[in-house]
Amino acid sequence: MTKSSSNAMWGGRFAAGPDAIMEAINASIGFDKRMARQDIDGSRAHASMLAAQGIITDTDAETIREGLLTVLSEIEAGTFEYSAALEDIHMNVEARLKEIVGEPAGRLHTARSRNDQVATDFKLWVRDQFDAAEGALLSLIDGLLIQAEAGADWAMPGFTHLQTAQPVTWGHHMMAYVEMLGRDLSRVRDARARMNECPLGAAALAGTSFPIDRDATAKALGFDRPSANSLDAVSDRDFALDFLNCASITAMHLSRLAEELVIWSSAQFRFVTLSDRFSTGSSIMPQKKNPDAAELIRAKIGRIFGANTALMIVMKGLPLAYSKDMQEDKEQVFDAADNWMLAMAAMDGMVRDMTANRESLAAAAGSGFSTATDLADWCVRALNMPFRDAHHVTGSLVAMAEKEGCDLPDLTLAQMQTVHGAITEDVFSVLTVDASVASRTSYGGTAPDQVRSQVARWREVLA
Amino acid sequence: MTKSSSNAMWGGRFAAGPDAIMEAINASIGFDKRMARQDIDGSRAHASMLAAQGIITDTDAETIREGLLTVLSEIEAGTFEYSAALEDIHMNVEARLKEIVGEPAGRLHTARSRNDQVATDFKLWVRDQFDAAEGALLSLIDGLLIQAEAGADWAMPGFTHLQTAQPVTWGHHMMAYVEMLGRDLSRVRDARARMNECPLGAAALAGTSFPIDRDATAKALGFDRPSANSLDAVSDRDFALDFLNCASITAMHLSRLAEELVIWSSAQFRFVTLSDRFSTGSSIMPQKKNPDAAELIRAKIGRIFGANTALMIVMKGLPLAYSKDMQEDKEQVFDAADNWMLAMAAMDGMVRDMTANRESLAAAAGSGFSTATDLADWCVRALNMPFRDAHHVTGSLVAMAEKEGCDLPDLTLAQMQTVHGAITEDVFSVLTVDASVASRTSYGGTAPDQVRSQVARWREVLA
Amino acid sequence: MTKSSSNAMWGGRFAAGPDAIMEAINASIGFDKRMARQDIDGSRAHASMLAAQGIITDTDAETIREGLLTVLSEIEAGTFEYSAALEDIHMNVEARLKEIVGEPAGRLHTARSRNDQVATDFKLWVRDQFDAAEGALLSLIDGLLIQAEAGADWAMPGFTHLQTAQPVTWGHHMMAYVEMLGRDLSRVRDARARMNECPLGAAALAGTSFPIDRDATAKALGFDRPSANSLDAVSDRDFALDFLNCASITAMHLSRLAEELVIWSSAQFRFVTLSDRFSTGSSIMPQKKNPDAAELIRAKIGRIFGANTALMIVMKGLPLAYSKDMQEDKEQVFDAADNWMLAMAAMDGMVRDMTANRESLAAAAGSGFSTATDLADWCVRALNMPFRDAHHVTGSLVAMAEKEGCDLPDLTLAQMQTVHGAITEDVFSVLTVDASVASRTSYGGTAPDQVRSQVARWREVLA
Amino acid sequence: MTKSSSNAMWGGRFAAGPDAIMEAINASIGFDKRMARQDIDGSRAHASMLAAQGIITDTDAETIREGLLTVLSEIEAGTFEYSAALEDIHMNVEARLKEIVGEPAGRLHTARSRNDQVATDFKLWVRDQFDAAEGALLSLIDGLLIQAEAGADWAMPGFTHLQTAQPVTWGHHMMAYVEMLGRDLSRVRDARARMNECPLGAAALAGTSFPIDRDATAKALGFDRPSANSLDAVSDRDFALDFLNCASITAMHLSRLAEELVIWSSAQFRFVTLSDRFSTGSSIMPQKKNPDAAELIRAKIGRIFGANTALMIVMKGLPLAYSKDMQEDKEQVFDAADNWMLAMAAMDGMVRDMTANRESLAAAAGSGFSTATDLADWCVRALNMPFRDAHHVTGSLVAMAEKEGCDLPDLTLAQMQTVHGAITEDVFSVLTVDASVASRTSYGGTAPDQVRSQVARWREVLA
Repeated sequence: MTKSSSNAMWGGRFAAGPDAIMEAINASIGFDKRMARQDIDGSRAHASMLAAQGIITDTDAETIREGLLTVLSEIEAGTFEYSAALEDIHMNVEARLKEIVGEPAGRLHTARSRNDQVATDFKLWVRDQFDAAEGALLSLIDGLLIQAEAGADWAMPGFTHLQTAQPVTWGHHMMAYVEMLGRDLSRVRDARARMNECPLGAAALAGTSFPIDRDATAKALGFDRPSANSLDAVSDRDFALDFLNCASITAMHLSRLAEELVIWSSAQFRFVTLSDRFSTGSSIMPQKKNPDAAELIRAKIGRIFGANTALMIVMKGLPLAYSKDMQEDKEQVFDAADNWMLAMAAMDGMVRDMTANRESLAAAAGSGFSTATDLADWCVRALNMPFRDAHHVTGSLVAMAEKEGCDLPDLTLAQMQTVHGAITEDVFSVLTVDASVASRTSYGGTAPDQVRSQVARWREVLA
Repeated sequence: MTKSSSNAMWGGRFAAGPDAIMEAINASIGFDKRMARQDIDGSRAHASMLAAQGIITDTDAETIREGLLTVLSEIEAGTFEYSAALEDIHMNVEARLKEIVGEPAGRLHTARSRNDQVATDFKLWVRDQFDAAEGALLSLIDGLLIQAEAGADWAMPGFTHLQTAQPVTWGHHMMAYVEMLGRDLSRVRDARARMNECPLGAAALAGTSFPIDRDATAKALGFDRPSANSLDAVSDRDFALDFLNCASITAMHLSRLAEELVIWSSAQFRFVTLSDRFSTGSSIMPQKKNPDAAELIRAKIGRIFGANTALMIVMKGLPLAYSKDMQEDKEQVFDAADNWMLAMAAMDGMVRDMTANRESLAAAAGSGFSTATDLADWCVRALNMPFRDAHHVTGSLVAMAEKEGCDLPDLTLAQMQTVHGAITEDVFSVLTVDASVASRTSYGGTAPDQVRSQVARWREVLA
Repeated sequence: MTKSSSNAMWGGRFAAGPDAIMEAINASIGFDKRMARQDIDGSRAHASMLAAQGIITDTDAETIREGLLTVLSEIEAGTFEYSAALEDIHMNVEARLKEIVGEPAGRLHTARSRNDQVATDFKLWVRDQFDAAEGALLSLIDGLLIQAEAGADWAMPGFTHLQTAQPVTWGHHMMAYVEMLGRDLSRVRDARARMNECPLGAAALAGTSFPIDRDATAKALGFDRPSANSLDAVSDRDFALDFLNCASITAMHLSRLAEELVIWSSAQFRFVTLSDRFSTGSSIMPQKKNPDAAELIRAKIGRIFGANTALMIVMKGLPLAYSKDMQEDKEQVFDAADNWMLAMAAMDGMVRDMTANRESLAAAAGSGFSTATDLADWCVRALNMPFRDAHHVTGSLVAMAEKEGCDLPDLTLAQMQTVHGAITEDVFSVLTVDASVASRTSYGGTAPDQVRSQVARWREVLA
Repeated sequence: MTKSSSNAMWGGRFAAGPDAIMEAINASIGFDKRMARQDIDGSRAHASMLAAQGIITDTDAETIREGLLTVLSEIEAGTFEYSAALEDIHMNVEARLKEIVGEPAGRLHTARSRNDQVATDFKLWVRDQFDAAEGALLSLIDGLLIQAEAGADWAMPGFTHLQTAQPVTWGHHMMAYVEMLGRDLSRVRDARARMNECPLGAAALAGTSFPIDRDATAKALGFDRPSANSLDAVSDRDFALDFLNCASITAMHLSRLAEELVIWSSAQFRFVTLSDRFSTGSSIMPQKKNPDAAELIRAKIGRIFGANTALMIVMKGLPLAYSKDMQEDKEQVFDAADNWMLAMAAMDGMVRDMTANRESLAAAAGSGFSTATDLADWCVRALNMPFRDAHHVTGSLVAMAEKEGCDLPDLTLAQMQTVHGAITEDVFSVLTVDASVASRTSYGGTAPDQVRSQVARWREVLA
């Protein structure tokens, strides 16, 4: 491409000139309108407090509060006309309020500033998402518990390095994800508690000389307390980073389960059958079921951790207090929240709908000499061998079976005794898959009773 | 929040059930409609080739090509009705084509698949953005050259660690960014050349048995050649990663200039005055000019490198060939492209509009014993001292000046000779800021003539 | 470079062939030896439990426990010989134990596996670092409290967009960072509590058939409880990600303070003087003090968040249970921990040593019509004007002062009354910097008494 | 943990006090000693130029150059004593030179500064790594070509979504990675060309007044030209970012191949057998071969892209010229380079050693109605059906076969004709796997001849 044509293409996009460029880069109304309800909630609480403290009249406060409800109803009805010239949701709402109620609208902004207003709105929005995430995690855990309970004693291969290591149970595998999501729940609750301080009243950055009651607005908006430093209150985006970190770790967990579902759905594994609702077919190959939802969930960690990266970079090295850089916070959080919720909903549906193929699982569980460890443990227990020696004896027996082209239980006692004379008939009691999983009764182990006990514990936690 | 209410909030969002969730996570029409023109260009080229090869009739090809133009005109007119049920732009266009032209529409998809189609469309889109980026970089370089030429001999402090080190010239400082952007230009051109291979004809992943002419479609779409491996052609997103890397490094460069503009605009520095068009004022403090555009540009590296991170994570560990994870590529690239272009446009406008405050720059250039290095170099040259010794003598003279509360040129020769007896009157010729910058005539140095020579060189490069 | 020479260079590095390459990529002893003490603690606890449960004899357990202490003393004395052929710290310790105590060493590995062993060791290591981080945060908060208390009433400019907005106090600014670090402390404590579950006894992945007592080993190692799912226990690295996230957010906070220190140390600001101990000088320009430590601290967010990114990418899409990919976890965490601790220590020292330049701060605080907001608030309070109108009146008065080349308090009452007739003499009581900061008494505001009250609150929290 | 104990642990680490902390954070000798050879090369070239320009005497230059060789030999022999008090490799080398040659050592630093010296050294180091990367890529491509040629006609399943889509050939699959690595090679060469400008002579930041010959030093050190702006020359780390980006994209490619090798090595797939040299066994399960090397290679993208992230964050928002933050560049690049090279070497060895299991591949290639597309294409060609209709007919036939429990070629012509009467005996000629792959002769397609032709093309490119 020649210089002139690339210049022309380039020039075309911004032909409208500097003013259009500045509006394009500066205005946030295109995305921060998602905080309209939070903005109005905050303003209504602020107006009530101003009246209670005698800073504005009760009449003005009531007029403002009613007017804001009208604005909200317009927004919810889709009749509100947003203006990019007014830059953001805060000015859009206030300007409309002024049209509706006139002069009292000008008193609403007393003892506050856009800096504490935006911080409050955004915190309210993020807090709602923490609550939604909590609900989604609880629901997804519930879906996994149902699978775990149903398959508490279904044997399947336990893998390390995607190689069969020992038999485990389907229920046990499902419960591993319950533990992960349980930590996610704990992380969400911790982050929500940490962020629940109200910035309102920090004003531009220094606080205010008006006799405001910050406890009152904090309480009205469901915060535990007002934030304790006004400079920090308008400069802090830790709550958004904590949110993105919570979302990132959950998304990583989901990527692992999604990867397993993709592999398990392959013709080579056939461990699970995903429902049609979360797969796509091929009109030409009707037997083909592509695990699209699983793949898309697997990918979500990308954009969610990308958002985490983005905001961390934005905040790096910003001097106090407010800098316009911080306007880049919302789109990242909005996108991550949407995709986190979507990924949890899709996984929830997929987990509830999927069918474990018990026969494939069982067949795979028994192959690959998967009870070799049970044999070694038997040697330790029954023959009082040091573990490292038992390990060695077992290796010889597996090698013998492999050479014979049979499985461990197919060796005769006589054959086994050529490797170690003290081996007795009792050894055969530990060589089946069912015996193996049933024996792993240590706390948190794969034995069906352990799985059922963990399911019960989780049901109590969630009750 | 109680469990039930968070569940309610959560449940509300996805009340529509699994089908709605699957559509929400699976459909791409919400964003890939941005590739409508590229999709239609690709299909038109494909139809022509099919006819030329005798795979479809000329009449069918012409009907398809005309019909596609009709679809394009509907899209450009805003009358096209997108359907989420049809998932993506490709199916939306084909379905509409069928409504318009009937049976021949069904022949368009011969010898291709959605996999090679989407790869081709996306490459065409990204290639356009490389061209737009080239134009933007050229324009921004031009803006910097204008500043550099005007201020080729305006002295200002050269900083290390944000401490005055040596005087430099305004023009020289501007030209440093020209070099950075020049590398960005080189990186863009390299990446564009590397990606300019056409995936069309790779079909689903294995190529096709139809006697297609891949050279013809490649040429028709402006590609240098067809891609050489069909599996790779549908699995490759390197071009998108190269694009995001180009955008990231430019955005990092812009963040550095933006940081300087923010610092230079402070009341404490007053090195530059930004135009009103790229600042925001305060109705209450009319003298205040907030460098909003500079701050927003500084922040853009966040979302752009965040997008780079996102796509790298998505691609990590994906088996060949196409996996649905790859659908997450476009939103990242679209957002990064929009913000890269916007940041370049805003910086371009800001650079052209800004005014260097020559007095502030000059005053700052002379403070802080900024010509100490010149003094040391004089000792080496005139007195044949080893550099390390000259360094030591200079330190003593600066300490003397600091103690006397004066600048280096204000010391008397007699005072200087108490430190080193061989110093002569000639030393004063190197102690002024203007002498200092004029003396730095090494290639790429800060001397005004060097700056002008570099400006001239760049003008030739860009001519 | 020609192909052959680049091949030669390339070939040279790995001339030793496949075995050397495999050892280089596979062995972890080069870094995991940092967990030697944790490994030995874990093995000693395991041996005691095995004896208590009758799985091994008391004599064997005592022999093992003593032998491990000998190994530890060799490691601490630097006389231990690590072997790369033994791959990791676990095998190195066990092999040496066998040399020292013979046969009983072979019984130590009963009912455990390297998978639960490495998870336990790493958790113990990370937990120690959480504790160290807590100590460092408490110390740094203490350093900031000392600065805040000393300067509770020192006026300085409060910035937005690096433009003077309103006067604040030095103490208030310091306390903003105390709040940030206080959240960091909370995040560290939450993460430590969440991770404090013991993986030991999960064995390879399925639990064990030996009658182990997981509560006993958990308690002996200071864990709150055993982990509840053995598959999860060996597959989980959430604790490492939580650690890296804690480190990242703190490092971001430090980058902000470091940026301020760099800017404040510039000749143009002169807000602070850093001590010689955390600056570097120039032998040639003795007055120059480069804020090297501040710059290096500012940069640490890079490698720490880079480590966070690295581990998140590693964990993406890993199927259960253990995969060798997870061996990449430790170097990231080790490097991040070292640099987090170092950055906190350096900032701690810098904060305690730095000197605020009260005159520069005060002078800057009063410039730029910084009390304009106070004037507007006065109009609201004294004249009952709506805030938006008061804002407008103030703008006119600032414009008048700017035109007159004076500050707001220098305008006469008569001049002011030309803008609004109702203004009275009382207005002058709010126009000084000291009056401004003293008036901001809202909770969390910048008034000296508010600052002192927050210092007192924090001292109680930390007591 | 109580406050006091965490403080004690914390305090212990830095008990040595501020000076130790500052040395720990400030000194770079611990890592930059890896650039010793580059530092000495640069100094030797500088000394020669100074003499050629008459700035120092020939005798001094020769003394310096010889002395530097002595220093280098001490370093290579491991007898050099590094001093942390001397901070970095540059001062360590110069100090030792002074001990060896005395006064002339003090003249070496004439007309340069540590800023341009470190930039030059680091560029030389990175350039060597680009060359090593080129060699490694060429070698790995060669290994893949050998596999591709051997298996040009071995059928295997081509997957989308890890579901069988169409048969491809082993050679074709291998060649997909050749294309990826070919782009990596192109990216490496572009980046190397872009960075090959010499910073030496930029001095501290402003250039120098000495009559140096920058072209001479550039040429002596193998650079194409001197860098054109001295401020940029000491502030630029683009070459390191370009390097990290090259490494990242290659590492992503390797993660994809590694993922495939892990999946293909599973008992369920059995597509490949990895050599013992790049697997680890289990003493207890001798048949188990864990693909450790593949997993570790899969993980390397984590730390390499983590390093990319780290340096991008460090550079964000840095004002010109040199800031100490930039000292954080080297460890990231060193670690990424080591791991990139290691990953390429390990993959190289693994690819050369691995064995494709032709029977498993062939069996899998034929299952899943993998020739359905061939059937559809036959309908288009032979029956002149629109593709979309042919697609529909094929779907019906596959459904029929699935219902009958047979494969497509097992249907009778009569059965087929119940779906579409025009189908003829000829259809059976396209339903076998071998016919399918043989037919895909479009450029870049999977047909064996196409694969062989691409192998030949690459051999020519590499010749």
